[in-house]
Amino acid sequence: MTERIDHTLRDRWTPEAGHLPPHALKWLRRRTGLDATTTPARPPAVGPSELSDAARAALGEVVGPGFVRVDRDSRLGRAGGLSYVDLLRHRGAGEPAVPDAVVLPGTPEQVADVLRTCVEHDVAVVPFGGGTSVVGGVDALRGDKAAVVALDLARLDALVSVDPVSRLAVLQAGVTAPRADRLLAPHGLTVGHVPQSYERATIGGFAATRSAGQASSGYGRFEDVVEGVRLATPVGEWRLGAAPASAAGPDLKQLVVGSEGVLGVITEVALRVRPRPRVERYEGFVVDGWERGVEVVRALAQDRVLADVTRLSDVDETEVSLALAGGWKTRAVRAYLRARGVRRPCLLVLGWHGRDRAEVARGRRETLRGHRLVPLGTPMGEAWRRGRFNGPRQRDALMEVGVCVETLETATHWSRIPELRDAVRGALVDALGRCVVMCHISHAYETGASLYFTVLAARDPGDPVGQWRVAKAAASEAITGLGTISHHHAVGADHAPYLEAEVGALGLEVLAAAKRVLDPTGVLNPGKLLPPDRRS
Amino acid sequence: MTERIDHTLRDRWTPEAGHLPPHALKWLRRRTGLDATTTPARPPAVGPSELSDAARAALGEVVGPGFVRVDRDSRLGRAGGLSYVDLLRHRGAGEPAVPDAVVLPGTPEQVADVLRTCVEHDVAVVPFGGGTSVVGGVDALRGDKAAVVALDLARLDALVSVDPVSRLAVLQAGVTAPRADRLLAPHGLTVGHVPQSYERATIGGFAATRSAGQASSGYGRFEDVVEGVRLATPVGEWRLGAAPASAAGPDLKQLVVGSEGVLGVITEVALRVRPRPRVERYEGFVVDGWERGVEVVRALAQDRVLADVTRLSDVDETEVSLALAGGWKTRAVRAYLRARGVRRPCLLVLGWHGRDRAEVARGRRETLRGHRLVPLGTPMGEAWRRGRFNGPRQRDALMEVGVCVETLETATHWSRIPELRDAVRGALVDALGRCVVMCHISHAYETGASLYFTVLAARDPGDPVGQWRVAKAAASEAITGLGTISHHHAVGADHAPYLEAEVGALGLEVLAAAKRVLDPTGVLNPGKLLPPDRRS
Repeated sequence: MTERIDHTLRDRWTPEAGHLPPHALKWLRRRTGLDATTTPARPPAVGPSELSDAARAALGEVVGPGFVRVDRDSRLGRAGGLSYVDLLRHRGAGEPAVPDAVVLPGTPEQVADVLRTCVEHDVAVVPFGGGTSVVGGVDALRGDKAAVVALDLARLDALVSVDPVSRLAVLQAGVTAPRADRLLAPHGLTVGHVPQSYERATIGGFAATRSAGQASSGYGRFEDVVEGVRLATPVGEWRLGAAPASAAGPDLKQLVVGSEGVLGVITEVALRVRPRPRVERYEGFVVDGWERGVEVVRALAQDRVLADVTRLSDVDETEVSLALAGGWKTRAVRAYLRARGVRRPCLLVLGWHGRDRAEVARGRRETLRGHRLVPLGTPMGEAWRRGRFNGPRQRDALMEVGVCVETLETATHWSRIPELRDAVRGALVDALGRCVVMCHISHAYETGASLYFTVLAARDPGDPVGQWRVAKAAASEAITGLGTISHHHAVGADHAPYLEAEVGALGLEVLAAAKRVLDPTGVLNPGKLLPPDRRS
Repeated sequence: MTERIDHTLRDRWTPEAGHLPPHALKWLRRRTGLDATTTPARPPAVGPSELSDAARAALGEVVGPGFVRVDRDSRLGRAGGLSYVDLLRHRGAGEPAVPDAVVLPGTPEQVADVLRTCVEHDVAVVPFGGGTSVVGGVDALRGDKAAVVALDLARLDALVSVDPVSRLAVLQAGVTAPRADRLLAPHGLTVGHVPQSYERATIGGFAATRSAGQASSGYGRFEDVVEGVRLATPVGEWRLGAAPASAAGPDLKQLVVGSEGVLGVITEVALRVRPRPRVERYEGFVVDGWERGVEVVRALAQDRVLADVTRLSDVDETEVSLALAGGWKTRAVRAYLRARGVRRPCLLVLGWHGRDRAEVARGRRETLRGHRLVPLGTPMGEAWRRGRFNGPRQRDALMEVGVCVETLETATHWSRIPELRDAVRGALVDALGRCVVMCHISHAYETGASLYFTVLAARDPGDPVGQWRVAKAAASEAITGLGTISHHHAVGADHAPYLEAEVGALGLEVLAAAKRVLDPTGVLNPGKLLPPDRRS
């Protein structure tokens, strides 16, 4: 079943960067003071592996010697995720934490054996799926261990079972999102989980990080679709998920979902699946003003008629989309909006999925009933859909020319949305000076919504990592007390200092106690989720 | 704000029993071999309180001396919940565990102080809301402590705050379900949580037990509507709930929801609320055969067009409903069904809520599209609605005449529904001999459904408790491995022996570790949720 695995992941650091047209560069110069100079990637130095020969041999015994890799490319390919700081490190600014080896188990049993072996040899283990973390979730930190290995789950790429009556599919953790949909297609089913990281991210990673996808209004957040988990831990296997709902005590599955490799390694996930939609329709609309747009999305959520995809950009993000697109079509859109009297356009993308055109039409009617939105038609919606995985490539193009570009996100209840947005924007502008801060709502609930921010500034060539660290800290402080430190990016290493403010000292103590049970020697993903003094 | 509190709860054991018409008695004799003899309640003996004077004085300091009650009626009123075995104990068969005192704190701060005082004086604490547990969840077990008090939350009966924009309401834990709806009515809002225990049960109890209500298809299970919790523990207060959704690590709120008073005492709950429906419509339908009925409900769930209330009775339950109703209307229904060619009628009750008739009509249209159901009209639906809280009263009437009558419930994935129903039915019939076992689905999900069983048998006058214990054990064994040990009744003392099979030894260890953090001396609700050897 295994497809070709790129064991080096070399392309992670030299992707095909998106194209940045001249008018976009000009616009960036004007808005951020960018002095665009090409700054190509400069691969970092990689020291020798510190994995002992004994540990290497023992791991080789478990997975086969060919699946314990210590070559430079394999190790560098798993040296961190895809945050701006991660990418800077692979461009010569700062040093990525490089694992001492990459271990590729082939079965859940081998995962368990690898963990036991690592305990025996005092080796830290970083579970590695698609490597798309933007919060330091896969940084190869060794904590107080003698060495650290990346536990790459790429070989766990099978569809274990399908129960079409119950609409359940069990998938191994290393199955990527596109592969999951390919494996389920012959059964007429889909997971429906489509985050921006779709192309690389894995089922196990989604579960470990409480992922949300662009169509989560329709299909649910990943924790909503996880019906069962199989977790390998140093002290044994833990399986959860007997029924679609239960009152048999606390929902321990929700302790595993979001545990970010700190409590165990997810090896299999049972997922609620749905029939593949045969028809999808995406449309662009415009609302005049952010406040009005928020009211519209709130009404859709509270009336429970959200489109499967519902995404509202603020005035700045809408303006940037139009500015970067350029061309006669954009000019036509601007003229049309002026003619309609729209002064502060906010783009609202709505997408409906259905078995047939009638179902999509019904969903669309439900959503649009009672709202007077300025329609931009399906071309605008389809343009968004075509480009929806392009964020990472665009970011690479921007980084090539010296831009500081990063995203961050949060969520809160509706009544706090204005205050939270202002606070985060203010903190970023204070920290970065001349910059562009864009915001959108991509996930709406009856009681609140997520806020997703994109920041563009001229990169500080002297200390690019420090420049962003200061801004990120300011934004995180602004979020604390108003919203969650992460709606769908997770905690990783970057948000760990802010978790206590959200879940309390007792929350951290409970997590640490769970970790002591499941990972008594603390080999699992050191430095993630729990702040340093509560790691084990 | 506080309404009249019945501090004795005397009426819990002498309710106004429902009426049992002669034809029903006749039917019971025929089906169960019942030799109906009136067996009126005989109040159990109550020993002297073993709460030390020092502890009583210290608790009086915290809540005021008048709110530490040691009189017989107050103590007996909190001696257990409302399971069949609980009721037997209050009828002279077996001895209820009677708390040594009842403590009634007036604020969340007082709850915390009561817990600290109980730790100091080695007193076990049983949090007590509506006292409607049917799984021994409020049995006044003292574990290894010197005494045990019932911590009655009746005075925590305030609406703390309402956020109409975010559709959030914060309610104190002791607010009963009807009072919650009364408090929210001036805001035009409702919780929408309507279990059979509605009349007595409390917000805190719903959260502590992961309750599901009759309209949970529409409004969600209680864990779905809990947006935040405030928990008093012996080591301090724990608050959770920063946002409508979060990826900030595991969802610790879901560790508190369902913790059954073992990890702390829930003092406040932030709930997602909805506009009060102005229109409700209930209708009865008939489907020919259980298998066909299950198919219909599964299709509704998987097409996401369930009515707000969706309840499918099996052939036996439908037959019993008709038999017990009696009269010319029932004869007319039978004739009508014969004329329609229905051989194995299964009653399907559907109920829709909405802002107006148009919304209800839309919902109804969505649900019924594509399904050919035999309509029985709104009278049948309304009859169900009128009687929907009558279960406990009917049970009292049946117990009066010597019937062994109890309910139990589970849930599983659709593909296992037939096997699970057969297994539980078979186990009950094997254990009880001549008896009536009825079953219905009251909660359906995309991946599965609940199964709710009602059992009627002639009571064994010699050992009525033992008779049911054997049957309950057989049913629980039958459930284990096929479904969850509880879909919405919770674990309590009765299901604790079966939890390990469901969540694993590691699950119990993690729960015990969380308990050691939050309740280091183990004063909280001994003997519940965790099996005896893992209580602290």
